[in-house]
Amino acid sequence: MASDIVLLAAVSVLSACQQAYFASFVGKSRIKHKVIPPAVSGHPEFERTFRAQQNGIEFYTLFLVDLWTAGWFFNQELASLFGLLYIYGRHLYFYGYIQSVKSRLQGFSVTKMALILLLVMSVTGITNSLLDKYIHINLLNKIRHIVLG
Amino acid sequence: MASDIVLLAAVSVLSACQQAYFASFVGKSRIKHKVIPPAVSGHPEFERTFRAQQNGIEFYTLFLVDLWTAGWFFNQELASLFGLLYIYGRHLYFYGYIQSVKSRLQGFSVTKMALILLLVMSVTGITNSLLDKYIHINLLNKIRHIVLG
Amino acid sequence: MASDIVLLAAVSVLSACQQAYFASFVGKSRIKHKVIPPAVSGHPEFERTFRAQQNGIEFYTLFLVDLWTAGWFFNQELASLFGLLYIYGRHLYFYGYIQSVKSRLQGFSVTKMALILLLVMSVTGITNSLLDKYIHINLLNKIRHIVLG
Repeated sequence: MASDIVLLAAVSVLSACQQAYFASFVGKSRIKHKVIPPAVSGHPEFERTFRAQQNGIEFYTLFLVDLWTAGWFFNQELASLFGLLYIYGRHLYFYGYIQSVKSRLQGFSVTKMALILLLVMSVTGITNSLLDKYIHINLLNKIRHIVLG
Repeated sequence: MASDIVLLAAVSVLSACQQAYFASFVGKSRIKHKVIPPAVSGHPEFERTFRAQQNGIEFYTLFLVDLWTAGWFFNQELASLFGLLYIYGRHLYFYGYIQSVKSRLQGFSVTKMALILLLVMSVTGITNSLLDKYIHINLLNKIRHIVLG
Repeated sequence: MASDIVLLAAVSVLSACQQAYFASFVGKSRIKHKVIPPAVSGHPEFERTFRAQQNGIEFYTLFLVDLWTAGWFFNQELASLFGLLYIYGRHLYFYGYIQSVKSRLQGFSVTKMALILLLVMSVTGITNSLLDKYIHINLLNKIRHIVLG
C-alpha cells in the first residue's frame, strides 16, 4: 500500500547499528573478562552479555519481517514508531541482562509488546490485501471511507 | 517481475510466528528442565530443543533470501508453496530433534529440498533478469510465448 | 530510487549459498572430529569452525540490511561491489578461523570495512530521501546536476 519505505529503511539501519554495537560490546567483554575465542563461557558477566546479544540475533530477522510487512501492508509511520519501541526494548534488555538475569525481563516485555503490535498490523494488512486480491473486497479502504466520511 | 508480494509476505509472517513459537518453547523447556539462563546446557532434552531452535535461526535469513528472490524473479505462487514446504520441514525437524538426535533427519531433508527448489527458481529468475538487463534477451518470456502459443 | 534490484538480489543469493556452504562445512567438521549433536564443543578445530559459522550468522541479517538500503537509496552497482567484498571477507574469516584464532582477524577487517562502506552509503541515501520527503530538498540530485553539468 505505502510505496514509500524510507522510514522503515531508517529504522532498519538504526537497528542494524544497534546489533553491531552489541557485537562489539561482546568483544570488549571478552577482553575485560579474559574469555579467549572461540570460548563463549568462563565468566558469569560475559556469559550474560553473550546471551543478551545472541537473543537479539535470534529475534532480529523476525523483527524485520514484522516491521516491513506491518509498514508495507498497514501503515509505515506507525510501524516505524513500534520499530523504535522495539529498539528501545532491546536496549533495556541488553543492559538489564548484563546487570543480572532478572533485570532482562523489563526489556523483554517491551520487545514482546512491540512485536505483538507489529504482528497485529501485519496480519490485518496482509489479510486485507489477500481479500482484495482474490475476492476484490478492500475492508481497510471501506473503513477509511466511513471514518473520513 | 511480479509486482505482487502479498503471498510472500504471508508466508514470511507465518514463518516468523513459527520462529517465535520455537523461541517460547525453548523458554518453557528451560523451566521444565530447570536450566537457568544464561546457561544453554544441563539437560539432554533441553539441549536438543535449544539446538533445534538455533538451527532454525541459522537458516531463517537464508530461507527468506531464497523465498523472496524466487518469488520476485521467478514465480510468487510457486515460491510461496515451497515456502510452506520449508515451514512444514522446520516443524518436523524441531519436534523430531526434541524426540531424538536421529529423528531430526527427516525434517532436515524436507527443509533442504525446499531450499534447493527455491534456489533453483532464484538462480533461474535472476540469471534471466541479468541477461534481460545487460544483453536484452528475456529467455523466460520467450519460453512463455512458445508454451502459451 | 533505483527501481532495479537484480544485482542486489544476485549478491544476496550468492551470500546465502556461502552461508549454506559454511553450515554444511560445520556438519562435516562434526563427523571429522566426532562431535555428536547437539554438542557444540569437544575438539578445538570444530569449536573454531562452529564459531566462525556462528559469527557469519550473527552478521548476516545486518549485512543484508546495509546492502539493500545502500543499493536502494544510494547506488545499486556500488553496493553490490561492496557486497562482494563482504562475501570475500567472510571467506577469509571462515578459513582463517579454522586455521587459528588469530588468522580470523584479516577477514574480519575486510568484512568490517565492507559494512562501514555500505553503512555510509545507506545513511547518506536515507538522509537524502528523508530531506526530500519532508522538506523537499534532494541534495544528491543537486550534486549530480553540478558534477554532470
